[in-house]
Amino acid sequence: MSNFKIALLDGDGIGPEIMREAVKVLDLVAERNNISFDLIHTPFGASAYFECGHPFPEQTQKVCDEADAILKGPIGLSHEESQKIPVDMQPERGALLPLRRRYNTYANFRPVFLPKGLAHFSPLKPEIIGDGIDIMIIRELVGGLYFGEKETGKTADGIRYVKETLEYDENQIRRIAKVAFETAQKRKKVLHNIHKSNVLKSSVLWNAVIDEVGKDYPDVKVENILVDAAATYLCLNPGRFDVMVMENMFGDILSDQGGGILGSLGLMPSACLGDDKAYYEPSHGSAPDIAGKNIANPYSMIGSVAMMLEMSFNMTQESRNVWHAMQSVFADGYSTPDLSRPGSDVKMIDTQAFGDRVVAAL
Amino acid sequence: MSNFKIALLDGDGIGPEIMREAVKVLDLVAERNNISFDLIHTPFGASAYFECGHPFPEQTQKVCDEADAILKGPIGLSHEESQKIPVDMQPERGALLPLRRRYNTYANFRPVFLPKGLAHFSPLKPEIIGDGIDIMIIRELVGGLYFGEKETGKTADGIRYVKETLEYDENQIRRIAKVAFETAQKRKKVLHNIHKSNVLKSSVLWNAVIDEVGKDYPDVKVENILVDAAATYLCLNPGRFDVMVMENMFGDILSDQGGGILGSLGLMPSACLGDDKAYYEPSHGSAPDIAGKNIANPYSMIGSVAMMLEMSFNMTQESRNVWHAMQSVFADGYSTPDLSRPGSDVKMIDTQAFGDRVVAAL
Ligand SMILES: CC(C)[C@H](C(=O)O)[C@@H](O)C(=O)O
Ligand SMILES: CC(C)[C@H](C(=O)O)[C@@H](O)C(=O)O
Repeated sequence: MSNFKIALLDGDGIGPEIMREAVKVLDLVAERNNISFDLIHTPFGASAYFECGHPFPEQTQKVCDEADAILKGPIGLSHEESQKIPVDMQPERGALLPLRRRYNTYANFRPVFLPKGLAHFSPLKPEIIGDGIDIMIIRELVGGLYFGEKETGKTADGIRYVKETLEYDENQIRRIAKVAFETAQKRKKVLHNIHKSNVLKSSVLWNAVIDEVGKDYPDVKVENILVDAAATYLCLNPGRFDVMVMENMFGDILSDQGGGILGSLGLMPSACLGDDKAYYEPSHGSAPDIAGKNIANPYSMIGSVAMMLEMSFNMTQESRNVWHAMQSVFADGYSTPDLSRPGSDVKMIDTQAFGDRVVAAL
Repeated sequence: MSNFKIALLDGDGIGPEIMREAVKVLDLVAERNNISFDLIHTPFGASAYFECGHPFPEQTQKVCDEADAILKGPIGLSHEESQKIPVDMQPERGALLPLRRRYNTYANFRPVFLPKGLAHFSPLKPEIIGDGIDIMIIRELVGGLYFGEKETGKTADGIRYVKETLEYDENQIRRIAKVAFETAQKRKKVLHNIHKSNVLKSSVLWNAVIDEVGKDYPDVKVENILVDAAATYLCLNPGRFDVMVMENMFGDILSDQGGGILGSLGLMPSACLGDDKAYYEPSHGSAPDIAGKNIANPYSMIGSVAMMLEMSFNMTQESRNVWHAMQSVFADGYSTPDLSRPGSDVKMIDTQAFGDRVVAAL
């Protein structure tokens, strides 16, 4: 019987609530497949800072080091609460970015996915959505402005200034390019390469490497598109995109725009893969305003489980089953208050009941 | 009788066609107000490169230096055509960015504006749009990654790399902050400050200066919002925003997303103001695919004229008249092929006929 160790980083805000539902799914999958998941809860984020003095404490690093995969809840506090934490101990700078760097999780998969049956969630008109939205954003996650040098200071005249560096080298670009081409090969064989080469030299190198790597994937058609044009067309015609690849900051912005066209970031699970370790997380924040109310939809957390089953444990069929189970709950007309617009015709249930229905459908 | 000199930079692609319609409007406004506009066409962009060997030739610089305002058409060529131009002579790097730098046009106003009557253009559902969309994006236009140092090279091991710098100093931030607060004061007294302070040090300085400048505008409420969250909410709830201020690259992406939620970049005029000189331009590209077909809508070009009348010549009433005239043409059910979706119920007219109707309505 296989035994997988999974580190569970509950995180902040709604994290623990939605993690609870994800655990139910993991338990069922383990039981059904006669495997065992060793699930180890360990502190991470602002709550970890308040409990242990560090948002990514050593004990958590150790658990993650030893885990076969990491499932991470959202992090962050309300603006007021975060004022109480020193800048470098903030959950983003002190925990999330160090997690990404520690495991070198350079390939961030962010599906922008809305099956036809859920089209009513989207702010876009039905004729724009057509058969649903199905885009895979592949974001470079450990380079660019996020991890470049930073300098703040004052000039001789006392003027405050700041400089920070957007850095890439060809190896960093090549490895994410390979991931993107391989993904495109398994899908529609079209890769949209997002860049800003009319202004950024980093995009010039980026595009050159995409071009070179593309030679090994002659069956994949590359479409180069400027990041600003991509932002326009994600709204106007999302069906035009299938796999999109881009650097870190562009990916941050466009993937959240992706959550916008789906109707909620709550519909955005994600996978962050390195060569040796992977972690999985909702793309959204910790929603402190609705934390503890049992109204957050666990879709993004359970979706992250589905991605983990496929990408870390090679359980492709179970992964598909989890996706379908979630969709069937929506298809039966259920939803949670955080996702539903006033006036929409849904049967409202809470976080736990949603998780229970997913488990029942599985 | 006042006499204003206006440099007309026709630009590339659809530029000359839509400029022609803008000129009709300028002629009528001059006649009616008993003033004279000295309109001087001068080459700019890729076409200028092919004609004169430089995309921003000296003669054009001279005309612009002497002009009271500059009206600029879109620039750029198809991907294939631009391969024929050396990188530094490309119209973006060789003309547009130098134009911005030469006149230090740091304050870029990009209205994301759709009156209720035009709501059908938007890909967003009517219940999302409500009474229309009316956002003013204020983008810093001469700083950040666009104008920072750039370095490309190879490491000792022969690995190609690139570094480019995102730079701001407090003076650059302060002057755009003032413009933003003043604009907010004239509108709904709410300013959304777009940043990424959980990752970027430049946003930390940016936010600090916004905060300081805000003390002089106690009647304006500042809402700080992360750039990624802003991208989500521009789709989900554009009515939440009124005036938004942001650095250069964020402004590039979010304003094009703005064009997306309007239904077309063709609905995006803009103003680029420096302390001594201003230029006006559509936010979109030169659409080489439809150039010369007389089907491009001149809205963004005529809208840029409207912004010029207000911001350079203080002709607020005439500016409003021009806006209304354009809207009334749409309200009468007319549109151009580039803007209209198949199946939508419009009377299709061409570029020239659209301009004629605007003039008639004026
Ligand atoms: C929390 C923040 C540091 C993070 C990022 O910018 O990458 C988040 O927005 C995301 O997209 O995962
Ligand atoms: C053409 C390009 C250099 C320009 C920019 O990035 O500023 C354009 O996209 C814009 O938004 O005006």
